Amino acid sequence: MFMTTGYALLTPGRKLEPWTFERRDLRPDDVRIRITYCGVCHTDLHAIEGATEVPLVPGHEFVGEVLAVGPEVTAFKVGDPVAVGNIVDSCGKCVACLDGEETYCLEFPTLTYGGVDRHDGTPRYGAYSHEMVVRDHFVYPLPESLDPAGVAPLMCAGITVWQPLHRLGVTSGTRVGVVGLGGLGHLAVKFAKALGASVAVFTTSPAKRDDALALGADEVVVSTSPDEMNAHALAFDVIIDTASGEHDISPYVLTLDFDGTICMIGIPPRYEVDSMALLRGRRRLTASGSGGVRDTREMLAFAATHGITADVEVLPAPQVQVALDRLARNDVRWRFVLDFGSD
Amino acid sequence: MFMTTGYALLTPGRKLEPWTFERRDLRPDDVRIRITYCGVCHTDLHAIEGATEVPLVPGHEFVGEVLAVGPEVTAFKVGDPVAVGNIVDSCGKCVACLDGEETYCLEFPTLTYGGVDRHDGTPRYGAYSHEMVVRDHFVYPLPESLDPAGVAPLMCAGITVWQPLHRLGVTSGTRVGVVGLGGLGHLAVKFAKALGASVAVFTTSPAKRDDALALGADEVVVSTSPDEMNAHALAFDVIIDTASGEHDISPYVLTLDFDGTICMIGIPPRYEVDSMALLRGRRRLTASGSGGVRDTREMLAFAATHGITADVEVLPAPQVQVALDRLARNDVRWRFVLDFGSD
Repeated sequence: MFMTTGYALLTPGRKLEPWTFERRDLRPDDVRIRITYCGVCHTDLHAIEGATEVPLVPGHEFVGEVLAVGPEVTAFKVGDPVAVGNIVDSCGKCVACLDGEETYCLEFPTLTYGGVDRHDGTPRYGAYSHEMVVRDHFVYPLPESLDPAGVAPLMCAGITVWQPLHRLGVTSGTRVGVVGLGGLGHLAVKFAKALGASVAVFTTSPAKRDDALALGADEVVVSTSPDEMNAHALAFDVIIDTASGEHDISPYVLTLDFDGTICMIGIPPRYEVDSMALLRGRRRLTASGSGGVRDTREMLAFAATHGITADVEVLPAPQVQVALDRLARNDVRWRFVLDFGSD
Repeated sequence: MFMTTGYALLTPGRKLEPWTFERRDLRPDDVRIRITYCGVCHTDLHAIEGATEVPLVPGHEFVGEVLAVGPEVTAFKVGDPVAVGNIVDSCGKCVACLDGEETYCLEFPTLTYGGVDRHDGTPRYGAYSHEMVVRDHFVYPLPESLDPAGVAPLMCAGITVWQPLHRLGVTSGTRVGVVGLGGLGHLAVKFAKALGASVAVFTTSPAKRDDALALGADEVVVSTSPDEMNAHALAFDVIIDTASGEHDISPYVLTLDFDGTICMIGIPPRYEVDSMALLRGRRRLTASGSGGVRDTREMLAFAATHGITADVEVLPAPQVQVALDRLARNDVRWRFVLDFGSD
């Protein structure tokens, strides 16, 4: 074992503090990574505010540099730039894992933080820290052409919106609606546009109109305006709903064309939809969370080809509390990234 | 106008009575039909019990013989055996109608009973009667190889389950689950088997096991048994849920494989599903109601090719009350059909 430093919730609340803790020695298939940038995801905020077990070290979308590799690792060498997302291990044997869908591992994947390592049972501490050890299968080469700080959020927010766009066959001419313009939504706009779709952003904030258009959206629909919503009946093939709070999705469903699909990214306890909104159009409701290794590789290759990164505000890691407090107020455009090379 | 006789709800309640009423004179594109058999659908029972306007003449799945045609009708002639379902007109101009999806007419289709004729505003009276007038576009040739009484329920129950099976791509090797074994469910089993699928019936009634197997189902899953349900995790590609009452669909959703789809036929006010059941498998929830002219034609052709009709219990039309009362107790295997040629 070796020691590293990071930021942890040590007592319940919302205040993270500097903390020094142990990382495991390398197993044969492990990669030791010096973390340079880590994104600040809404999930981190929820995990902190809902924490029942401490210490909690958040952080599950990061990039860095390989410091060492285990003896069986062939895909990486010391000095390689790499990226890691929100899962770091899985059973590897179930139908989901064998299909490259590790996110849906039937034994549940090992998350980057929260829970325990599936082999030695030690707690998983996240990437608000200077070093981490990750099984090689869940480490990805960092595309050299992309800004590393902007790649970090691709590893959670990016793959989470890429996966349904890709799976639902979004391509040239597809009409895509994106509900919510934030860390997830702004990447959904970029990916959908790069896939060739026409893209509308649904927002409750008319003030975000210019932002959405600047990101490449073709139009903006103010979802609190019945007139604007009615004018978009049957207007979309696919809607990616990135809004995190509970909200009535039926008005969005009615903007789907026949056989259209709305994909939920947020996770309230239940999804509910007006039955006639779904039935009279044979529309489909689905949900998606992150993506497996195969899709993550494809997402990174696509991002590199199209020059897609997140729009980020980089803060020195010691300012983690500023990032969390501003994120809690939705005061971010569009993702905070903590710089672990500067402290 | 001309007079016909049938059975109507004349005062709120559940008792139908013989009634004599007017049908319109033929418009240029109308077909006058002598009704021979009319199915008794659960929807009829709901319409009767919930009726706020009387007289109500139920009946929306029937077969008969052409008695006369308007001057512009070319597809039918006097004496042709024909079949009609639950819609008898639509705007003909909206994107849905132009796409052969008249069920989803944006101006709402004219139903076989309930509401009014879209041209002259007269009340629509259904097919618990001896004669009806229907616009030619919504009249279908009755396949001669099939038993007419068994075809009547195909026109509502049949198309309602055929449409999602067809749209969701059920074919050889598809693993289909059917929730509920009744008028809809027994036809879903027949169509899915004929499409080449393996079929399981979910039922709360272990007593229906032999019936399901006799209909061609490959297996029966007792949905009240957690052991049986758990043994079928990830077992299905498509589930057709024909249960009419409100019920928790999440246990069924968990038996879908990754990217599988559950299609709801019943119409509670809202569809609800546990979010993780949908998300952890990227499963899809959809709904379907009946089908348009194109799909109905395909359904009838498929039924003729594969010799599929509903399993029916034929009652003389004057016994309509017996049919309704037994249907209210679910005492039917699997569809009542009223014989209007015998009274």
